[in-house]
This record gives sequence, structure tokens and C-alpha cells, in this order.
Amino acid sequence: MEKMRVSEQRGPKIFLSGSIRGGRQLLDTYRLMCDTLEEAGAEVLSWHVADPELEKTEMRMTEEEIYIRDMGLLMKSDALIAEVTVPSTGVGYEICRALVKGIPVLCLHSPDAAVSAMVLGNPGPLLEVRAYPDKASLQKIIIEFIKAL
Amino acid sequence: MEKMRVSEQRGPKIFLSGSIRGGRQLLDTYRLMCDTLEEAGAEVLSWHVADPELEKTEMRMTEEEIYIRDMGLLMKSDALIAEVTVPSTGVGYEICRALVKGIPVLCLHSPDAAVSAMVLGNPGPLLEVRAYPDKASLQKIIIEFIKAL
Repeated sequence: MEKMRVSEQRGPKIFLSGSIRGGRQLLDTYRLMCDTLEEAGAEVLSWHVADPELEKTEMRMTEEEIYIRDMGLLMKSDALIAEVTVPSTGVGYEICRALVKGIPVLCLHSPDAAVSAMVLGNPGPLLEVRAYPDKASLQKIIIEFIKAL
Repeated sequence: MEKMRVSEQRGPKIFLSGSIRGGRQLLDTYRLMCDTLEEAGAEVLSWHVADPELEKTEMRMTEEEIYIRDMGLLMKSDALIAEVTVPSTGVGYEICRALVKGIPVLCLHSPDAAVSAMVLGNPGPLLEVRAYPDKASLQKIIIEFIKAL
């Protein structure tokens, strides 16, 4: 009973989307996003995106197991937050899947990133795209997004 | 009347998908894919992906104009062929949109590419993923795909 109450009080379930095979150079940013979300009371279903040991774990999985895990988590999520600074085929795929599912999507990028027009020019009302000049701004945007869900 | 007959005889309409802002290092490959498709009788709706002057053209367009043009062409296409060697958020988005629309998707990559699990592990029956060791193989795979449509 206690468990159920805790579960009911949980914040929104978030799918965090970031580059894996496209390059892990922003891993520290994904970790900051993950920590910020959890501190704001959200539940990050795809926390593995911010795991520095991810490649080792996924080496033991088939491609289809990874796909099924990620799509399963996305289907359970209330919103998707993507870091789109590093070009990533998987992130683009996940943004589209989330929009088709009909959940809010927040795309974040550094101000000098060459972000895809499929993101920047997307007129869908569920999609919000924001540049963050520094880490404090990144955290602020994430917290505001979570509160508005 | 003559025009109508020519139009009716036209081959399948193809959306060619390749990296733009993710990096243009495979532009020559996109050009080869475009030429191969046209020689095989297909109509490449998104031929601009293989245009070396593309960046100049798109600098005169808004982000939303680019998005609307590309999604409009995708909606008119009978199939999508993507080169997925270079990670690209836009390519991932377009692959998902094509699968949601219900058209066949062929993803091609060089054998040493770190291709996303959202592509390699995708069990959807409309998606085919092939590595091409050389240009002749790339052309052969494209021609076979077009013939089977």
C-alpha cells in the first residue's frame, strides 16, 4: 500500500535521448540532464543514455534487443527530452516516434550547433526547441519543461 | 495525352535521404545513388540531397520552409532510400516518418559504419538494411530494390 502511494506520487516519466553511436562527446551533458530531471522529481526511463558504461552493456545485447528496450521505454514515457547538438540517427528516429505517439518533445542544443531542419523547422505544437548558452540555462529550461507537463 | 502516358510510365518516386547538417563528406555517394536511381527509371523527389549547392539554396529558406518541402516530398514518395553511414538527426527522423507512412525503406551504409540500433535492430518488415563494400555493390542493391517495388 505504501509502495503504491509512493508510485502514485512519482513525477513524469521521461525518455532522455542523446547520441550513442553518433559520438559520446556530450556524455557529461547527458549526465547533467539526467541528474537535473531526477532532482526535479521526474523518472528518467532511458537513464542508460547517460551511463558511461553503456557501450559495454550494449555489446552483450543484440541490435533488436536494444531497439525493443528503447521503443518499449519510449512508449511508457510521458515526454521526450533530446540533446540534439551531436547529429544522431537514433535521436532523430526517437523524436519522430515521440511526436507520432503524441507526447511533448523538448530538443536542447548548444547555440553554435548545426541542428537539423527536421527539428528547427518542425511546426508541430508538441515540439519545443531551445538553445542553452550554459549549464545553468540547460537546467532551468529542463525544470520549467517538467513543471509544465 | 502524350504527356499523361509519359507520366504513367514513370518509375517509382523515391525520397533520397542523406546527411546535410550532420556533414557532407559522403556527397559523392549521394550523387552516385541519385544517378543510379534515375538511370534505373526512378524519380528522385529529394534530388537536392545530392546537390553540392544545397547549402546556398537552403540559406535563402526558413527552417520551416525546408521542413515543409522535405515532408511534402516524403509524403509523395513510394519508398525512401537512406545513406546512414554519417550520423544525422534528419535522416533518422525521415526514416521514422517513412515507416509510419507505411512505405518501404532501404538503409545503406559502409561496412565499418557505427549504425544506430534504431536502424539495425528495427524489426519492421518495411525496413531493409544493407552494407555495401564498394560502389558497384551499392548500385546493385539500389537497382534490385527499385525493381522489387
